[in-house]
Amino acid sequence: MKARVHVMLKNGVLDPQGEAVHHALDAMGFEGVNGVRQGKVIELDLADGTTEADVNAMCEKLLANTVIESYTVELY
Amino acid sequence: MKARVHVMLKNGVLDPQGEAVHHALDAMGFEGVNGVRQGKVIELDLADGTTEADVNAMCEKLLANTVIESYTVELY
Repeated sequence: MKARVHVMLKNGVLDPQGEAVHHALDAMGFEGVNGVRQGKVIELDLADGTTEADVNAMCEKLLANTVIESYTVELY
Repeated sequence: MKARVHVMLKNGVLDPQGEAVHHALDAMGFEGVNGVRQGKVIELDLADGTTEADVNAMCEKLLANTVIESYTVELY
């Protein structure tokens, strides 16, 4: 069983990494890019029986800084 | 129109960030975690008419280091 966790900066929080990528794409001649946000993706290989609640607890306690970041959990 | 790009280290490439997260989860008492891989997710806000081929070109030239990283593009 696997889980994929996306951790993104919340809207309104400045994202310097995303801004840097945006500027670089502009400088390289890529047109039509209106905005870029960069975040983390964490793929967890889990023992069977691990629940989504367990993964949410991992996010709250370690994987995301919930003051400035939001996360989504996807089991597959 | 938006695109989400996942950039992950290829299998076989050592992932120290993922290892650090794995050890931290173990130390915090989370059981049943067999493996952790950490990557990047880049959300692009694109002008209408941008094609998947354009996004693939951005990945090849800037967003991913294709020697050690693989990427997937998802338009939505």
